[in-house]
Amino acid sequence: MNDDERTIRALIERWAIAAHEGDLEVVLANHDAEIVMYDVPPPEAGVRGLAAYQETWPGFFQWQKNATFDLLSLEVVAGQEVAFAYGLLRCGTPEELEAIPDRRLRLTVGLRKIGGQWTVLHEHHSFTARG
Amino acid sequence: MNDDERTIRALIERWAIAAHEGDLEVVLANHDAEIVMYDVPPPEAGVRGLAAYQETWPGFFQWQKNATFDLLSLEVVAGQEVAFAYGLLRCGTPEELEAIPDRRLRLTVGLRKIGGQWTVLHEHHSFTARG
Repeated sequence: MNDDERTIRALIERWAIAAHEGDLEVVLANHDAEIVMYDVPPPEAGVRGLAAYQETWPGFFQWQKNATFDLLSLEVVAGQEVAFAYGLLRCGTPEELEAIPDRRLRLTVGLRKIGGQWTVLHEHHSFTARG
Repeated sequence: MNDDERTIRALIERWAIAAHEGDLEVVLANHDAEIVMYDVPPPEAGVRGLAAYQETWPGFFQWQKNATFDLLSLEVVAGQEVAFAYGLLRCGTPEELEAIPDRRLRLTVGLRKIGGQWTVLHEHHSFTARG
């Protein structure tokens, strides 16, 4: 693993802990003003811009007080200027995790190094569709 | 847009047309042996490896004979060695598209240039969860 991959791994690990703990400042850190997030719920066309991204979190933090958000795996592929990462999380209330123990939140993150700082331009969060 | 971004855009546009038309050879082209796809249906941990990726397509091609798979938007962020892209597709049967006209398939792709050729290492396909 090179330094860029280590930096990005640490950035996403900090973000995941902050998402569980409700630390909005750390969740927003290193996120671009023009971020596009494909979130678990609608909007269908994605959450666009940092202000819209910020607005998605308070409701999630409330739900997370009684839920799990554990990053189980993370792969990072980094060039000198652009990188992406993908991984799996255990995410749900105790009831949800008991009902479907193998259920995973899938996360993909796209980043660009801007002014020497790895910056998140894109996030894609989803669950599988179970018929 | 630089040459790498143009190349990747063309690669994903060709892939989307081939996914609709059932052209397995083009769908698999430029995909890495170790690809990890987070697909719409399970498995929860992702489809891992090119053989497993290939196995997901025949059933999809059968369903696509009566369905739409139109790439509506695509953003490409490319460095010299690593890139990612994300976009929205109109995807469904005529009945599904009539029931929820704004429904979108969200696509994120991660690539690395290997031996001078942009190669897909990761795909994330999902629909939003509508409660």
